Amino acid sequence: MVQRTTLNMADIARQAGVSIASVSRALSGAPGVSPETRKHIRSLAHDLGYTVSPDAARLARGTSGRVAVVTPNLSHWFYSAMLDGIVTALHEVETDVLLYEVKHERERTRFFAELPARRQVDALVLIALPISDEERQRLDKMEVAVVMAGGVLGDHPHVRVDDVAIADQAASHLLVAGHERIGLIGSGGTWVLPYAAPAGREQGYRRAMDRWGVPVREDLVVRPVWGTGGGAEGMAQLLCLRRPPTAVVAFSDEVAFGALLTLRRAGVGVPERISVVGIDDHELAEAFDLTTVRQPVTEQGVRAGELVRQVLTGREPEESQVELPCRLVLRGTTGAPRPT
Amino acid sequence: MVQRTTLNMADIARQAGVSIASVSRALSGAPGVSPETRKHIRSLAHDLGYTVSPDAARLARGTSGRVAVVTPNLSHWFYSAMLDGIVTALHEVETDVLLYEVKHERERTRFFAELPARRQVDALVLIALPISDEERQRLDKMEVAVVMAGGVLGDHPHVRVDDVAIADQAASHLLVAGHERIGLIGSGGTWVLPYAAPAGREQGYRRAMDRWGVPVREDLVVRPVWGTGGGAEGMAQLLCLRRPPTAVVAFSDEVAFGALLTLRRAGVGVPERISVVGIDDHELAEAFDLTTVRQPVTEQGVRAGELVRQVLTGREPEESQVELPCRLVLRGTTGAPRPT
Repeated sequence: MVQRTTLNMADIARQAGVSIASVSRALSGAPGVSPETRKHIRSLAHDLGYTVSPDAARLARGTSGRVAVVTPNLSHWFYSAMLDGIVTALHEVETDVLLYEVKHERERTRFFAELPARRQVDALVLIALPISDEERQRLDKMEVAVVMAGGVLGDHPHVRVDDVAIADQAASHLLVAGHERIGLIGSGGTWVLPYAAPAGREQGYRRAMDRWGVPVREDLVVRPVWGTGGGAEGMAQLLCLRRPPTAVVAFSDEVAFGALLTLRRAGVGVPERISVVGIDDHELAEAFDLTTVRQPVTEQGVRAGELVRQVLTGREPEESQVELPCRLVLRGTTGAPRPT
Repeated sequence: MVQRTTLNMADIARQAGVSIASVSRALSGAPGVSPETRKHIRSLAHDLGYTVSPDAARLARGTSGRVAVVTPNLSHWFYSAMLDGIVTALHEVETDVLLYEVKHERERTRFFAELPARRQVDALVLIALPISDEERQRLDKMEVAVVMAGGVLGDHPHVRVDDVAIADQAASHLLVAGHERIGLIGSGGTWVLPYAAPAGREQGYRRAMDRWGVPVREDLVVRPVWGTGGGAEGMAQLLCLRRPPTAVVAFSDEVAFGALLTLRRAGVGVPERISVVGIDDHELAEAFDLTTVRQPVTEQGVRAGELVRQVLTGREPEESQVELPCRLVLRGTTGAPRPT
């Protein structure tokens, strides 16, 4: 905080004919001063061009008016859309957002090691970040409100979707159309701690296959590194099989985009020869004409921001474990299998 | 800031046998205390579990250790990638980032009206935000360092690309391949203050056409609302012409993605019938196999963050008006015109 005015509270107190303590109370919003006096002092301060130092006022109140948001990635759509929702919800109540990106294991270790020094925030929102037991204990010790957006973290308030159900929906849509040779392009991670989504979504794919009595062929399940590059590579792997799948569930839309690129390059008709279904409904899924299962990402962020607001007012949220529904969005990349 | 420890500086001063002022100076890093005493006090504070309140320490030093970043959009790739670069550069020097999104005119007006109250930051980074003269004067009055990322703002330090040159490159690539009926899908805005890129890129397209002596046909220039939806619509407009273009320069890659969707739906071969070139090299441009002119977005953010760091150390940056080069990335959506 750089206080650039040379005017101080004593000047205002003198002009208003009140004590310095009254000026402080009036400007910081603390009780102990009548509404009229508060109004008079504030208008005088305004006329004199005096700006309250927000940090000083907040130090006095014991809150920072700030919430930290921690994201593993700033530039990918999922995390950006989630952040957008969180920021929108918090700015509505004039709460500032301090932003931390922990992309690599090293930054993540450092972030958690420095947590005590980060206590100048009233709450912490984690975006889909995997957390170790030790880190969770550290968070609990901080006595700062912690909210998880896009995942689960112990008993802390959270907003998420059901990854098992979302992949089940994607696979079921292919099964009901008559596909049996259904592949899965999953997601391999580079983190020491695994994200929850890859395991959940693979489980959903297997659950749907099982319910339909269709055996999973393990050679149709590949797990390249997450992203469009991985999706392109995973699809190429599947095309090399003696009997490629007639349909593929992709871990996420970005993975599906990569798979579609490989199919286009290989001259394989979509959906005539191979159907592709994604998960997420990425902002560009429509431009790819991709059939996908939509999860409400920005809305998860908004709901997480609202949970923070509720927690900060000191009352228990009515619903602190929020799960939002997902739904199939039919576009042009899926269809019935070709008769053989 | 919530100071949770009940220990205060007086306790440490007592145990160390020094004055409270010395403890304050030792912990805040201020001069006036010997290195040995500083070390002794810090180790004692550490052993006692005393945590310095960062806000209090910074208030004493007169800096906040925070920089505000203002973006018009959190969820679109361009702004996210830029933000990623800025945050990466600032976190390297332990500077915290306060994030503000001003999506709509209403939020923008409010943000600038509240600026004086935002002075708890050492600097302000604006991401490609159009600024009115009045707002610029307001910024100048704040006496806070202002850096523009992805644009120009008076004499303030900035990092940007040359929008005229970038579109000239895109169009020249089509002209050299023999195209003459080259369309432009530009970008119409919804802001009261226009962004600089649409005008600059249209100028670049016209400059290239002019240099090659190819007259611009005004019916081949369309300006839908920015985005993939606008791109799809703009391309549909061009397809309805009695003589559609043989090639199209799109304002940005997102606009090109939409144009490609329309062409796919219409069954028009790319690049056999119509070539499409984008601008940006969006993270998904490769998945669309899109030819484009690449601008280094994350790097602009990193350089903007470095400018902030230099300005905050109080020395004049060696180069405060940075322009980064762009280059053509050839992929599968452009080729020679079909002989007629």
